[in-house]
Amino acid sequence: MRPEALAAYAEAAGGVGNASSLHAAGRRARRRVEEARERVAAALGARPSEVVFTAGGTESDNLAVKGIFWARRDARPARRGVIASAVEHHAVLDAVQWLADAGDAAVTWLPTDGDGVVAPASLARALAAEGPEPALVTVMWANNEIGTVQPIAELARLAAARGVPMHTDAVQAVGQVPVDFAASGVAALTVSGHKLGGPVGVGALLLGRDVACTPLLHGGGQERDVRSGTPDVAGIAAFAAALDAAVAERERAAPARAALRDALVAGVRAAVPDAVLNGHPRARLPGNAHFSFPGCEGDALLLLLDAQGVACSTGSACSAGVAQPSHVLLALGADADRARGSLRFTLGHTSTRADVEALLGALPAAVARARAAGALRARR
Amino acid sequence: MRPEALAAYAEAAGGVGNASSLHAAGRRARRRVEEARERVAAALGARPSEVVFTAGGTESDNLAVKGIFWARRDARPARRGVIASAVEHHAVLDAVQWLADAGDAAVTWLPTDGDGVVAPASLARALAAEGPEPALVTVMWANNEIGTVQPIAELARLAAARGVPMHTDAVQAVGQVPVDFAASGVAALTVSGHKLGGPVGVGALLLGRDVACTPLLHGGGQERDVRSGTPDVAGIAAFAAALDAAVAERERAAPARAALRDALVAGVRAAVPDAVLNGHPRARLPGNAHFSFPGCEGDALLLLLDAQGVACSTGSACSAGVAQPSHVLLALGADADRARGSLRFTLGHTSTRADVEALLGALPAAVARARAAGALRARR
Repeated sequence: MRPEALAAYAEAAGGVGNASSLHAAGRRARRRVEEARERVAAALGARPSEVVFTAGGTESDNLAVKGIFWARRDARPARRGVIASAVEHHAVLDAVQWLADAGDAAVTWLPTDGDGVVAPASLARALAAEGPEPALVTVMWANNEIGTVQPIAELARLAAARGVPMHTDAVQAVGQVPVDFAASGVAALTVSGHKLGGPVGVGALLLGRDVACTPLLHGGGQERDVRSGTPDVAGIAAFAAALDAAVAERERAAPARAALRDALVAGVRAAVPDAVLNGHPRARLPGNAHFSFPGCEGDALLLLLDAQGVACSTGSACSAGVAQPSHVLLALGADADRARGSLRFTLGHTSTRADVEALLGALPAAVARARAAGALRARR
Repeated sequence: MRPEALAAYAEAAGGVGNASSLHAAGRRARRRVEEARERVAAALGARPSEVVFTAGGTESDNLAVKGIFWARRDARPARRGVIASAVEHHAVLDAVQWLADAGDAAVTWLPTDGDGVVAPASLARALAAEGPEPALVTVMWANNEIGTVQPIAELARLAAARGVPMHTDAVQAVGQVPVDFAASGVAALTVSGHKLGGPVGVGALLLGRDVACTPLLHGGGQERDVRSGTPDVAGIAAFAAALDAAVAERERAAPARAALRDALVAGVRAAVPDAVLNGHPRARLPGNAHFSFPGCEGDALLLLLDAQGVACSTGSACSAGVAQPSHVLLALGADADRARGSLRFTLGHTSTRADVEALLGALPAAVARARAAGALRARR
């Protein structure tokens, strides 16, 4: 957590007062929430009334997908199509699949090219196809595994032209690439605190004022009646402080991070010549490098590197320990072996050249060892 | 927030690591979460595997009501009855009503007596009634407005005898009265951090291992696949610390708080002889005193007392500012005037005799002024 976020948390947590209460302490708490709302809105090109605070990315994604779907289908029962990219985070993917399994939604999964990009033409085809009228489009701004950045504004224009609200999971994008809610043309956008150096368990859904959305959480009617629950004043203040800092430093920090990432990519390729960089070579997050290492098990490589003090991930942390190959890599055409032999290196706001050197120093021996283990298993 | 909870938060927030990640930092985070789970379980008479961490009371209530209903109805479509008390918190009430409005659930609202108590006989009648098979019973442990404590174990026995899982919202009860999940016989129990001196935005649903529950939030599959989302390690550690402290001090603190509350009640009655104490005279939360002041508008009285430094509530903070009379007071037979003229005084772990004296000092003039305003309005 960034120091300014932790300080904002501690300051607000020292106070008392339910932000829904009418007494003075409650009104003070309310003021803190509304100031945070203005900060978040200003940092993301939204109006304060478009900011719905939630418990994080997973909740924002579920709220957007299920809530917008339900509201639009209830308004017109024939409107039960959902168009989603095949590389969404599980919080979107599984929410969409659940609506389909319940027999409610008819889903069109948008394919990607080999770099993980959703072509606008494929969205245009899906929007024009025969079948149930689309209730919702959802395409993430940037992928959490391979780092590919999508042509969001172009996709949103197509959806808007057809009158269909588009949601985007921008959890990975905010603070890494320019994100402007109004300019993007999307109807709903997910952002999460802990990817920005803010607290875990706090996030927001930016939601256009005219976008109907059925609540997931009913109750006291907070947050425009879209998301009930006592506002987490301290968490919200810390989230706003972190988001502000991350967005403010992006213009300066992102090029430096991308240069460090490029050094990492070049170093990995020099050390392991047959390593394959996954994701788009240029349209990608500045801090993301994602490789397949032929002949290695990603988990084995991860643990060998971890023993040398290098923390990295196979696919998404959320699915860690799950033996299935990543749906993202399969979507861009990798076979199961290549998908299983892949590893994500992420650089954050505290990463240094020394961290990259440490990885590059540890990598060759780890790859050799993981390959020997893989070859042994293949022989048995 | 209790100092021990804030310290636990700051300590955990200083670390990094997604508790779902496989690397060393992730495993350390995971350990913190599992230690917190054991602490919460031990404090509430549950097994660690029965603790599902959520973003608070509203989410736990919605998850229990909708999740258990959906899972049981999907297993048998005829099973679509919901039996709920008429005095539930809005997080339960509105979740149940939403299921009914969607045409899914057939709801039986259990009445209360004049003290706000749900009679076991009325639950027995509802369970035996003709009509759709019951999927779920939900009755809160203690009421958030009038403080009445329900005969939970007796109600749970009746539900269990019929094979129907019972959920209870114990947000107000934990730390105030003895709460033992296993001994109570309920299938699911809601608890929230911020009522215990813990963080806002963190809570748990205690959920029996054999109780099927459809998730509200789909995604990474955390928390037994019932509640996805990156675990809020710092918030969870702080919640466990606060819960532990609140439950440990209850046996000593609750009698002292009840004595202070009794002094408050006696003082209010002496100062305003026609004030009516709402809720059960004995089976009530030790920190709760809830009065109707005939001829007063609750909101006016609240603001007059607030100007004197006394923070209190009309009804539930969640519905503050809403002009409708409290559904709780209407359920126990109050007319709209009595409901609107009511005020809740809550004593917490930092309340002192001087606080009570300050209230009693400010009350007579505030009541006189609120009555004069009410009389003026009535004449016009």
